[in-house]
Amino acid sequence: MKNSKLVLATRPSPTISADIFRLEEEQVSPLSDGQFLIKNHYLSVDPAMRGWVTDMPNYIPPVEIGAVMRSFAVGEVIDSKHPDYAVGEFVYGLFGWQEFTVSDSSDIERKVNLADGPLSINLHVLGMTGATAWFGLTEIGDPKEGETVVVSTAAGAVGSMVGQIAKARGCCTIGITGSDEKAARCLKEFGYDAVLNYKTATDLADDLANACPDGVDVYFDNVSGPITDAVMNLFNIGARMTVCGVIGISPDHVDGPRVSRTMLVKRAKMQGFLIFDHMHRLSEAVSGLLPLYKAGKLSFSEEVFEGLLSAPKGLESLLAGTNQGKVIVKLEG
Amino acid sequence: MKNSKLVLATRPSPTISADIFRLEEEQVSPLSDGQFLIKNHYLSVDPAMRGWVTDMPNYIPPVEIGAVMRSFAVGEVIDSKHPDYAVGEFVYGLFGWQEFTVSDSSDIERKVNLADGPLSINLHVLGMTGATAWFGLTEIGDPKEGETVVVSTAAGAVGSMVGQIAKARGCCTIGITGSDEKAARCLKEFGYDAVLNYKTATDLADDLANACPDGVDVYFDNVSGPITDAVMNLFNIGARMTVCGVIGISPDHVDGPRVSRTMLVKRAKMQGFLIFDHMHRLSEAVSGLLPLYKAGKLSFSEEVFEGLLSAPKGLESLLAGTNQGKVIVKLEG
Repeated sequence: MKNSKLVLATRPSPTISADIFRLEEEQVSPLSDGQFLIKNHYLSVDPAMRGWVTDMPNYIPPVEIGAVMRSFAVGEVIDSKHPDYAVGEFVYGLFGWQEFTVSDSSDIERKVNLADGPLSINLHVLGMTGATAWFGLTEIGDPKEGETVVVSTAAGAVGSMVGQIAKARGCCTIGITGSDEKAARCLKEFGYDAVLNYKTATDLADDLANACPDGVDVYFDNVSGPITDAVMNLFNIGARMTVCGVIGISPDHVDGPRVSRTMLVKRAKMQGFLIFDHMHRLSEAVSGLLPLYKAGKLSFSEEVFEGLLSAPKGLESLLAGTNQGKVIVKLEG
Repeated sequence: MKNSKLVLATRPSPTISADIFRLEEEQVSPLSDGQFLIKNHYLSVDPAMRGWVTDMPNYIPPVEIGAVMRSFAVGEVIDSKHPDYAVGEFVYGLFGWQEFTVSDSSDIERKVNLADGPLSINLHVLGMTGATAWFGLTEIGDPKEGETVVVSTAAGAVGSMVGQIAKARGCCTIGITGSDEKAARCLKEFGYDAVLNYKTATDLADDLANACPDGVDVYFDNVSGPITDAVMNLFNIGARMTVCGVIGISPDHVDGPRVSRTMLVKRAKMQGFLIFDHMHRLSEAVSGLLPLYKAGKLSFSEEVFEGLLSAPKGLESLLAGTNQGKVIVKLEG
């Protein structure tokens, strides 16, 4: 059987474009004892990939040149020499941008229950995306009913989950996003109480202060930079901030206002969050997320790219911010 | 009976000097039911006073012009119309820079046990100073045996307690201070494993990296600014930082390296700490500190100023950093 895969051909220099990946074909190797074969149905495209393809110091080793691109995926077990994984079962894990994956179970995050909903939600609502929102918001931010929760990249895959989880907890939710279209979706689909478009705001600090008359209790940050400066200026005493992403600043250290005085005067907490520290607890997040999803409280949208070869274009779209919703790649059945 | 008190005569403009205070005398008013009279023995001089005498936004209202200077003190109940406070008992609380204080108990932090040690330790080791170190280190930093703990203003009243509590927990303790004399005391009196003089270091970042070969797990920060930048660059994954003071930066917002990327990559936690949020739990801190003190694990030194009128000079000395140890004022017996 033949496997098609996308490998990293070269590192970005410095912009990430589709041509840093290369298609390769190979024969699927026969299974050894303890292995099983996964046919991937959906591949994930995530902001974290921006880091994975560089060789800058990061929380996880870079994807090696010539190696299959790292990616979460949902697939079906179609052959097995492993006692715990039977043909016909569906699994979620780090299977890479490829059609078939030979697994020894070390790359498995969880078995997927087809009754939970469409297969693809296991890539986001019930996958890394949802778990990021769940743990990052509930364990660091720990929002209480009636508190004000601000979310940057509010319409993004993670941000939209954060906003909705906070809303389900009875919080006032304020989203910050970068287009009027996304802003409209924040209000209509994700139930934010107010939303700001930072690209068109004449005075973001002013607009934000108006949107948060009771100050900010919880901030889920995916950007850093001037947006974050504006939010921090509105911190209430005891504010909690999850640092989940820094896409608004360059990887080089850039200067900004020192935060120590704000942190002190507001007795605020800021904590970095990386989902890979928590993926072993994915089932715990699913236990929290699934009831919300089933109750209709977790809307999502997907931007579906068709076919393995479209994955790099999906990544380009995500990094350009032109996507509408979680970017996924659907492989041919 | 006549009371002498130091009142705030004017706000600093902008430097704090002794002449912003004025001596006033008054008759002690007769006690009403529920009141008692305290004769103060020791007055405290603390870095927090820098903020209290200005009218900048702060965590506590400023001392009003004409009002007695806010200060912790230890005193003796010498007359009482309050059922819970008997003549001869000693108390610790916010009694102000004055000889006598009429209290209704709202300014009391705790009753003092004379058997615990010299009366003055209730101002520092067993008072606000010790409680700041105790809660700020153990609850935010939560250092584990074998971890590396860095303390800025390492020889200060709070810093020296932090270093010793961490040492008692089996940590490697690194102090940063501003004179060779203080550095020597850090090593000899406070048991730091290594100490750096930031004023004479040719390359603080280099020296710090050498002093912390295993990185930094806990940072108790009293300064912010370039010292803090250097420490944060050595953060290990999961590092915890207590923001207890910002004396190294101007009250105006100043720029520095943005911290979000470090916080994210290191999954670090930074939290502002203000002892006034925790003073109602002082007895809890005393329960932790007293056994360490009795076991000889909490060395301290005091710089004693004699007489009420010397309090402003004590404050000048503290703010100039020329003091050696906790600044206290001993009132005439």
